[in-house]
Amino acid sequence: MSLRIIATGGTFDKHYDELTGTLGFADSHLPAALARTRMTIPVALEQLPLLDSLDMHDADRQRVLASCRAASESAIVIIHGTDTMRETAAVLGAAALGKTIVLTGAMIPYEIANSDALFNMGFAAGVAQTLAAGVYVAMNGQVFAWDNVTKNRAAGVFQPL
Amino acid sequence: MSLRIIATGGTFDKHYDELTGTLGFADSHLPAALARTRMTIPVALEQLPLLDSLDMHDADRQRVLASCRAASESAIVIIHGTDTMRETAAVLGAAALGKTIVLTGAMIPYEIANSDALFNMGFAAGVAQTLAAGVYVAMNGQVFAWDNVTKNRAAGVFQPL
Amino acid sequence: MSLRIIATGGTFDKHYDELTGTLGFADSHLPAALARTRMTIPVALEQLPLLDSLDMHDADRQRVLASCRAASESAIVIIHGTDTMRETAAVLGAAALGKTIVLTGAMIPYEIANSDALFNMGFAAGVAQTLAAGVYVAMNGQVFAWDNVTKNRAAGVFQPL
Amino acid sequence: MSLRIIATGGTFDKHYDELTGTLGFADSHLPAALARTRMTIPVALEQLPLLDSLDMHDADRQRVLASCRAASESAIVIIHGTDTMRETAAVLGAAALGKTIVLTGAMIPYEIANSDALFNMGFAAGVAQTLAAGVYVAMNGQVFAWDNVTKNRAAGVFQPL
Repeated sequence: MSLRIIATGGTFDKHYDELTGTLGFADSHLPAALARTRMTIPVALEQLPLLDSLDMHDADRQRVLASCRAASESAIVIIHGTDTMRETAAVLGAAALGKTIVLTGAMIPYEIANSDALFNMGFAAGVAQTLAAGVYVAMNGQVFAWDNVTKNRAAGVFQPL
Repeated sequence: MSLRIIATGGTFDKHYDELTGTLGFADSHLPAALARTRMTIPVALEQLPLLDSLDMHDADRQRVLASCRAASESAIVIIHGTDTMRETAAVLGAAALGKTIVLTGAMIPYEIANSDALFNMGFAAGVAQTLAAGVYVAMNGQVFAWDNVTKNRAAGVFQPL
Repeated sequence: MSLRIIATGGTFDKHYDELTGTLGFADSHLPAALARTRMTIPVALEQLPLLDSLDMHDADRQRVLASCRAASESAIVIIHGTDTMRETAAVLGAAALGKTIVLTGAMIPYEIANSDALFNMGFAAGVAQTLAAGVYVAMNGQVFAWDNVTKNRAAGVFQPL
Repeated sequence: MSLRIIATGGTFDKHYDELTGTLGFADSHLPAALARTRMTIPVALEQLPLLDSLDMHDADRQRVLASCRAASESAIVIIHGTDTMRETAAVLGAAALGKTIVLTGAMIPYEIANSDALFNMGFAAGVAQTLAAGVYVAMNGQVFAWDNVTKNRAAGVFQPL
């Protein structure tokens, strides 16, 4: 079993810029986070442009799809913003690539205290190895099929339709 | 799907005692760690005596077995020391309880920088929901059957026999 | 020797709101930060409204001045936003209260990785006990008189005029 | 004003060894901690052998003294274990070097949650710049003259004789 992790940005990878006092993107936290996991299976990290998922357009989702299609691994974790995770999942689900693709992210950035990012990455890395081929959203300890999930923004949680 | 998490101590839950300058056990980190995961499925936390797994005796393993047998959940994660994780897994495996039981732990305590604890807990919480009934060891991104795993202490990793 | 710490907000105390994905103010981090310092002298913590210092108006600075004037302690640390730290220092300096008042803050919020907040609080707590009566800005290991300091926003550092 | 920081080990710099499960010394945390402070004055970091202060012998204290004597800076912070901080302070105090020398350390290692290390380093860096020439112990927000301090090991705090 080997695993591909595709970084696309989102809250998980937000970084505090001390000069502007705002959260944006700089170098991805994924290389450090992966080292910390001490994963013993082969893991390929692929970094796409880091975006707030509200800024993702069709072309961005097509790029994610192209990466999944080109991947030699059959287990893929995508680190993604939560706001449009469902939309990207739908693009990937419709493509029916015959791989196990799991989208995850975080409610609190990796670099901020009390972040759920590392837990979610672990959860996704687990179910990506064990679920049947298909496209899933995995957030905060729960797995959803790509066509039966929505983000409840008021509560900050994912739930079935 | 609901999940039971059983805390038994181990490196995951070690705590630095500032008066003695040593690592031991105090209150479990699990309640804080669970709050941080923001898990949206029902999770029951059961705390057994917190032990270094080198200090675990048969009676301690029988207590873990009793907890697994009594659990109403069919998905169970056990937070355990790494040094004798395999021995406890063997006791549980032989009992064939018909539940999915996943033992995990950490190489670095939860409260120490660069810890793998939260990742491992996420990974275990994922595969406990998706693997067939049985007993598994899940460490650092890899799942092992209970009867085909050993800790390579020189390298600090788990591997098949 | 006893110490008063007055919280007024600023980057030091910013908090990530996971529902909106923005940095703002909630409960102050100061009570937790103070517990962590294990200070053995008497310390009084006074919490004023937590504000981004760009949102501070004259009335807010007068409130800080009133707190300093009313304080029974002769050593005072003010946790303040960096952008208008100098303006508040000028109000306090002109009042000539005969106490040692030290304004400090942070370039990175206390709850974000790699924060300088705890270092700055320690530095300010030290010089507030040792400097002569007066008003000072103390940031990133350097002490400035209230009437000879400016923030270089491009570089993110404080420097003499 | 410029500052010399001399690392000698102690709880501040303890590191968790994941292969042995024990706390010892590896690379010092000081370079990372110093980067984090964003200090704007010149700071020289000098690393001596990292020792638990209970393992310090006369020769080790003489080496610290030699470093202080050789330093071109008149403000010096020594990161030291708490158990024999007083003994090293006495050696330095007797030498009457005419510099401001401040010994500090930590009750919780820098890399462990809730550490006081960064606060103490900030506090020491402040009073080293503001106190008269002499030798001091500065721990947890309080300054002690080198000849009027003792560690209360039962309570984990420093206090006057």
